[in-house]
Amino acid sequence: MSDTPDSAVRTYMEEHRTAFLADLAEWLRIPSVSAQPEHAQDVRRSAEWLAAKLRETGFPVAEVWPTDGAPAVFAEWPSGDQDAPTVLVYGHHDVQPAAREDGWHTDPFEPTTIDGRMYARGAAGRNAPAVNLKLLVEGEEESSSPHFRALVEQQRERLAADAVIVSDTGMWSEDTPTVCTGMRGLADCGITFRGPDQDIHSGSFGGAVPNPATVAARVVAALHDEDGRVTVPGFYDGIVPLTDQERALFAELPFDEEGWLRTAKSYATGGEAGYSTLERIWARPTAEVNGIGGGYQGPGGKTIVPASAELKLSFRLVAGQDPDKIELAVRDWIATRVPAGIRYEITFGAATRPCLTPLDHPALQSVVRAMGRAFEQPVRFTREGGSGPAADLQDVLGAPVLFLGISVPSDGWHAPNEKVELDLLFKGVETTAYLWGDLAAQPIR
Amino acid sequence: MSDTPDSAVRTYMEEHRTAFLADLAEWLRIPSVSAQPEHAQDVRRSAEWLAAKLRETGFPVAEVWPTDGAPAVFAEWPSGDQDAPTVLVYGHHDVQPAAREDGWHTDPFEPTTIDGRMYARGAAGRNAPAVNLKLLVEGEEESSSPHFRALVEQQRERLAADAVIVSDTGMWSEDTPTVCTGMRGLADCGITFRGPDQDIHSGSFGGAVPNPATVAARVVAALHDEDGRVTVPGFYDGIVPLTDQERALFAELPFDEEGWLRTAKSYATGGEAGYSTLERIWARPTAEVNGIGGGYQGPGGKTIVPASAELKLSFRLVAGQDPDKIELAVRDWIATRVPAGIRYEITFGAATRPCLTPLDHPALQSVVRAMGRAFEQPVRFTREGGSGPAADLQDVLGAPVLFLGISVPSDGWHAPNEKVELDLLFKGVETTAYLWGDLAAQPIR
Repeated sequence: MSDTPDSAVRTYMEEHRTAFLADLAEWLRIPSVSAQPEHAQDVRRSAEWLAAKLRETGFPVAEVWPTDGAPAVFAEWPSGDQDAPTVLVYGHHDVQPAAREDGWHTDPFEPTTIDGRMYARGAAGRNAPAVNLKLLVEGEEESSSPHFRALVEQQRERLAADAVIVSDTGMWSEDTPTVCTGMRGLADCGITFRGPDQDIHSGSFGGAVPNPATVAARVVAALHDEDGRVTVPGFYDGIVPLTDQERALFAELPFDEEGWLRTAKSYATGGEAGYSTLERIWARPTAEVNGIGGGYQGPGGKTIVPASAELKLSFRLVAGQDPDKIELAVRDWIATRVPAGIRYEITFGAATRPCLTPLDHPALQSVVRAMGRAFEQPVRFTREGGSGPAADLQDVLGAPVLFLGISVPSDGWHAPNEKVELDLLFKGVETTAYLWGDLAAQPIR
Repeated sequence: MSDTPDSAVRTYMEEHRTAFLADLAEWLRIPSVSAQPEHAQDVRRSAEWLAAKLRETGFPVAEVWPTDGAPAVFAEWPSGDQDAPTVLVYGHHDVQPAAREDGWHTDPFEPTTIDGRMYARGAAGRNAPAVNLKLLVEGEEESSSPHFRALVEQQRERLAADAVIVSDTGMWSEDTPTVCTGMRGLADCGITFRGPDQDIHSGSFGGAVPNPATVAARVVAALHDEDGRVTVPGFYDGIVPLTDQERALFAELPFDEEGWLRTAKSYATGGEAGYSTLERIWARPTAEVNGIGGGYQGPGGKTIVPASAELKLSFRLVAGQDPDKIELAVRDWIATRVPAGIRYEITFGAATRPCLTPLDHPALQSVVRAMGRAFEQPVRFTREGGSGPAADLQDVLGAPVLFLGISVPSDGWHAPNEKVELDLLFKGVETTAYLWGDLAAQPIR
């Protein structure tokens, strides 16, 4: 497709727009929630649907690969040219939990198009075109990819590639196309604190025995110091510091803090002292409480000391942080925060490594050129605050990882009323149509 | 009944035991949960059942008194003697929330007798005998009696009494009959902290906006200092200090801390420095988190910054503390703990005042004598850590409040598998049979 004129690409896309959107909607209807065991069958169904659709599209190879968890999909479409570079596109087919009562205006698993936006859980994903490439689409990204690295190691030969395209990032905004150069890693844990064997009367016992909800709250309160820095000893060890060049590139972006706050649906910025909002979300590690619960949460009151309390914590990591060391550091720190009479259990999910792409890699320049051609605008650089298993691909396959994604912050990833801007989705498809030709035209190895 | 011999009382009770237990079971079947609006009809039904039963028992007057909330029951049975003192017995007919899934081994609203214990929500209440007295049985004690004081003020004349017996306390243990001389007061509140308008992605926004679950946790963590003292400014103002005599009386009780811990189903003691366990629960004020909730609490993880978090806090108060001042102090303190970008709402329930009975009141000596006769043992003194509207009765009616209750700590008030020891229940009934005669035989005014 290297010599296909832009107009031909656009005509093709217009002709196939309706069929493509129908396929996308059919896929989004499958509630492939990897975090909830009751949806295991749906995640499997999502993989099978995708493999069948890829075969129908023309991929000579499209297989469902089992793992110890949810299955992944692998597909391959060799180039006619023996010397063409090999590109592996990574994506995922699982989604975050979603329920109407969370605040969705439409059924999260019934895709609904309103004003050129398609609303559905998982809508803010990207579809790859079927040209000259390998596809790997896993099913546990939203559950921290617990079996992904093992799968990649096991299938190292079939996955071998000269570059890896990760289609799980976003761009700056509808008006500012950008290429992402790094993602944060993730370590997360659930902690249950147990006090009395059952809820006990706070009048008869309160004030004389430890309260597990108080202990859970104290752990959360102690996570950060007054400067918003994480207090877990060793947390910042080994971090690759932000360079002045990177900080300058970030500062050049047309960042409108008030607009960003509206997108975040929040009412103030705040975080680690000494860093800008963009630096905080892209290039600094964090500790966040994703959930807390214990005791009576119904209407009215109930004067009890609760039997237990639970925390869900997650830590975003940046280049230089090792998730395994972070897990040990958090475990050691928690152990020092639990008083006599409180028992606890802590469970970590599978970690995701952080990654960072060299700014000067030739394949990154191909991405920038293809994107500029589709969007007809200059392309800038960002990082992504979210996490994905890109670093595992880089480690195991020894290939540089490039990020190409067209979703925008207002899409509401993981939140109620998640959607995709259809115009951007088609510009993304157009970018990949140009990208394969650009990559084939130069040495990227 | 002042001249009824003990043997006649016991024979009467044995003959009526089965009928009495059948009545009690019928009453306990009514899920009169005042904290849950869906049970409002049941609380009304409980009041009507009780009034009908009292009329059937012989009370010439037995009325259901409406309030702005749940109804109370009033009954009156005048003595034949013009000069007899008037005694008002206070109780309540509402119960705490209960559900099988909380850990009950039996249906909480289907009374079940096992080994001489009757298990049911509200089983650890007491029934008053029908002699020479007024009865007032309210329906919102478990919801902090929001309309009780207004009712007592409105019905001041019909409730007039020389002494008030409050049947809502317990005694030391099965083997050690005791009379309680004070109860703690209670102020409680619910606080909702709101951050983003909806749950947002912790990778895209986490670390750069305030997290309402973190704010809620920090409030809980800041409630106590390292000595376990409540940090809310002004919290301890005006407290009547524990005297050396009271501390000595407490210290004389056969307190077995390990046994107490088993009853508390807890694994360590702990609380305000410088006080014993009994002092902490009877004579010192506390702050307790009864419930906390925010963000994702399902299986697996969900990498979000939650939209909101909720706290349920309660404060036990001792003599000298004014619940209205405590509410203002807590409101002022919370206002200083909420950072920019977090909005909050705080709602207080109706407060309960603390109270303390003079050790040397002649009516208290009558209670001690009657109890000693029924239990055939010396009677000691305690306080109660729980709360009830006794102080309102003392204030409005100008009569001393005496506590008479036979439930024991292992009964599990407010917890799953709440029960009453039937032997103690009948000793309590016997005590009241002697008490009216003892009170009538001496001046208590």
